[in-house]
Formats: sequence, C-alpha cells, structure tokens
Amino acid sequence: MTLVVKVGGGADIDVQPLLRDLAQRTDWVMVHGASNGVNQLSEQLGHPPRFVTSLSGHVSRFTDARTLDVFAMSAGQQNLRIVEGLQRLGVNAVGLAGSSGRVLEAERKDHVKALVDGKRVVLRGDHTGTVDRVNAALLRLLLANGYAPVLTVPAISHEGDAVNADADRAAAQVAGALGADTLLILSNVPGLLRDVQDPATLIRRIPAAELEGVAEKYAQGRFKKKVLGAAEALQLGVERVILASANAPEPVGAALLGEGTVIGEPVAREVPA
Amino acid sequence: MTLVVKVGGGADIDVQPLLRDLAQRTDWVMVHGASNGVNQLSEQLGHPPRFVTSLSGHVSRFTDARTLDVFAMSAGQQNLRIVEGLQRLGVNAVGLAGSSGRVLEAERKDHVKALVDGKRVVLRGDHTGTVDRVNAALLRLLLANGYAPVLTVPAISHEGDAVNADADRAAAQVAGALGADTLLILSNVPGLLRDVQDPATLIRRIPAAELEGVAEKYAQGRFKKKVLGAAEALQLGVERVILASANAPEPVGAALLGEGTVIGEPVAREVPA
Repeated sequence: MTLVVKVGGGADIDVQPLLRDLAQRTDWVMVHGASNGVNQLSEQLGHPPRFVTSLSGHVSRFTDARTLDVFAMSAGQQNLRIVEGLQRLGVNAVGLAGSSGRVLEAERKDHVKALVDGKRVVLRGDHTGTVDRVNAALLRLLLANGYAPVLTVPAISHEGDAVNADADRAAAQVAGALGADTLLILSNVPGLLRDVQDPATLIRRIPAAELEGVAEKYAQGRFKKKVLGAAEALQLGVERVILASANAPEPVGAALLGEGTVIGEPVAREVPA
Repeated sequence: MTLVVKVGGGADIDVQPLLRDLAQRTDWVMVHGASNGVNQLSEQLGHPPRFVTSLSGHVSRFTDARTLDVFAMSAGQQNLRIVEGLQRLGVNAVGLAGSSGRVLEAERKDHVKALVDGKRVVLRGDHTGTVDRVNAALLRLLLANGYAPVLTVPAISHEGDAVNADADRAAAQVAGALGADTLLILSNVPGLLRDVQDPATLIRRIPAAELEGVAEKYAQGRFKKKVLGAAEALQLGVERVILASANAPEPVGAALLGEGTVIGEPVAREVPA
C-alpha cells in the first residue's frame, strides 16, 4: 500500500532524518511545498510578496506571474536538493513539478474578491488554484519501475497554466488518487495542539466525525490548511491522516506508530499515551 | 527514431515556435540549459558569479554550492515554463532535472587549477561535472507511455552530488544513449559562421573528419562547446548533428531539411544552398 508523505520545506526543518527513514522503505510518494523561502526570494528580486484580505477576512497571497516564477525557482531548488539527498542514500528519486505529466492538476481561481482600504475590489491575474485531479497512472508507472516520486507545487490548471496551490491539499489528492490508507503531514510541530505554546497539549486522536469541531476550536494559521487537507483526504477514502513532527529521529516510523495527531481510523499499533 | 533537440534558454530566444513545431511531432526528447539568467539572478541574490582562468587560458564559471542553488532555481523556473508551454499545446511534457532518476549522470571535477593574480592555485569545492551516463531506460519508459521528456541541468555526479554541466554535451550523451540518428542544437544564430558578424557565411556541411579543423578555425565563444558536443555525439554513433536557429518559424522542420550547419552525414533531403 503506497504511503504518501507531505513535508514542509521550512528552514526550521532538517529533512535528513526524514530522507534516511524513507530510504529504508519502499512504495511511497513524497510531496513538498515551495512557499518557504519565497518571501525572502521575492524581496531579494525586487518583487515583494503581496497579501490580500478576502471579504471574509482571510489573508492570502496574491500570486501574479512574476511571483509564480519565484515559486517555480524556490520549488525547483528545494526539489533538487531533496532528490539529491535521496539519491545519495541510494533511492532513485524522480522530482516532478505538478505540471510535469499534469501530475497535480488544479481548478484555477484567477481572481480574488478583496478588501483594499475598506473597499470591495476584484483583483484579476491571480495564478492560484486548488488541486482536484492527480495523474495516478504516472505515479504508478514510476513506482512500478523502482522510482520514488518527489512532487512539488506549482500545479497546472485544467487549461494548462502553472498555478500556485496548497501542498497539503495536493498531498490529500495524491493519497486519494493512489488509494493510500495513510497520509502523513509532517511539519515542525508534533501535531495539532490545544495550546500552540505547549507541546504537551497534543491532541492524539480525532475521529473523522469530530474533525470539524476540533479544528474550529484549535487549528490556527497554517494548521487550518492542514486540517482542510486531512478532511479532503478522508472524504477521498484515505483511512487516516497523521499530523506529526518531521524533526523526530525516525519521523515516518514514529508517525506510523501514532506519534502525532491521528485523524480518522486509529493506527494498527498505537503507542501508549 | 527518437529525435533529440537541445535549445538555449536565452532571453533572445522565443521558444514558442519551437514548442509549436515539436507539438506536431512525436518521439522526441528536449534538453535545455540553465545558465541564462544565472548571472543576473546571482547578482540580485548578492552572490555575484565568479569566473576563473584555467592554466590553459580558458575562462570558466566556478560553481560553489550557493551558485548551484541559483542554477537549480533558474533551471526549475525555465523548465516549468517550457513544460507549461507544451502542456498548453496538448503535449504531455515531463520536466526532469538531471538528478531525477539520475537521468543525466556526470563525472564530477571538484577542483580547478587556475591562475589568480598570475599565481597557480587549486580551487576546491567546484560543483561541476561532465555528463557521461544517461538513464535511457527512464526516457524510453516515459516515451513509450506518451510523455515528452524535457531535461535540464544540473546533472548528478556518480557520487550523488548535484553538479553544473554543459547542456550541449549532455544532449550529445542523450542522443548517443537513445541511439538517435540526429541531434539538433538550436540557438539564436543560424549555425557555425565563418564570420560571426555575417549570417551569409554559414558553413552548411562539415563531414565528421573535417570537424576538428573547421572548429579550430571558426568556432568562437560558446560555439566551442557546441562543437565539442557535436563531436561527442558523432563518436557515440549519432549520424548527424545540426546546429541551427531556434528563431525560425518551424525550427525543427527547417533544421531537419538542412537549414543550418550539418555535421556528419548529410540530411536525407538537403535544401539547395
């Protein structure tokens, strides 16, 4: 059964333990984001990031064509380094942006309704979308021939435009398309916390039916997207999504033993709390 | 018979005509470089390019780890845009850096003997290599399943380090490994010129046996590398290498009709001079 592992690309995550852990395993697909480093890179290239506030009060990045280029640069560099790390460990990794073989295909949303200085405006030219189709045949072809796919956004829209997309939700679509029973979403925190300041408040289990309520109460910042991704994966038939730390010595092994927030069905052998 | 097409990534090349031409054809592999844009990007990121003069007087780029990151960014962005352009034309392109599936594997040269202020020094930490092995099985797997591979440097060393490498010579290795009979090397000039200022001095045919002499006399600047790539391809059994313009309305069709510098065996139907 193929395992799907999503990892953040932040500077605060050392991916080496994850890569070493994955190198001991077969039949997995890795997904990583590209947003980390994008803000700094944008500033350095004289094109500072632009954030807009939606009518509902959500703050999101506005991705114009130049910003998408910056994303592509950041994704390309991070993907190359992850593939290199895996190759050094003897894993024949293949890095793919979402546009390659349309592996991550998205519904594009080319405009944003936003509040600017208190006024409602429509901003066009946003290169953003939500992944809703995965080329599972390409992933299976690579897996069957001994390659380990390492996927990154940007995705590609149904019309063929490269678009920025949330990598957690992309990973959920990959897990669903491959019929995976488990999706791991690894980051620099141990899982969903009741109090973000206190790792001891880790929520260890969330049955699917309780996800919405728990998320509303505790998910903050980028964990809102992770919870959205988890809900999406469960809807697609994935049995469980585990939000866990990428910084453990064996992050995949630990997560699969239940070290983290297990959403959906419990793990086979759960570590005693 | 698979056709291998190398194109430069310069701002002076509009790749759209090439992509439209390729979209009408099947069974090809594209290779592109990443060096264009790297100098500017390096400057913007506060890490200006460093060039060193070898003992034999050759000037070459010294690629430290940070410069390789800049290469990876530039390659990732250019590759994504080419794949996007092909996808819009209905071609199911798959972009691969050389490290993916070890598709472009290189012998690394980690030091350079150079002249600095007239003194001989050994500079270590160069992330540079020469492609000498190609994962043809991966390319054939993709081609057989309807995907069009779009390859870019960096390559990966035999030890697993990402390395900068010459894309013309990488394309020669790809053509050799796939048993291609023709390699096209497209750039912003119509081919090898006797007088670089005058397109009318195009050298239309160079038999393999005369390549070294003609190259010594006329190849300048980056055409030296293209001629090296051509010689390498011929040694690997490729019948002909055509140096031609990427800026023609149908650059592949024109080159295959002999519009350019045909090195090695003549084309089947050569256009009258």
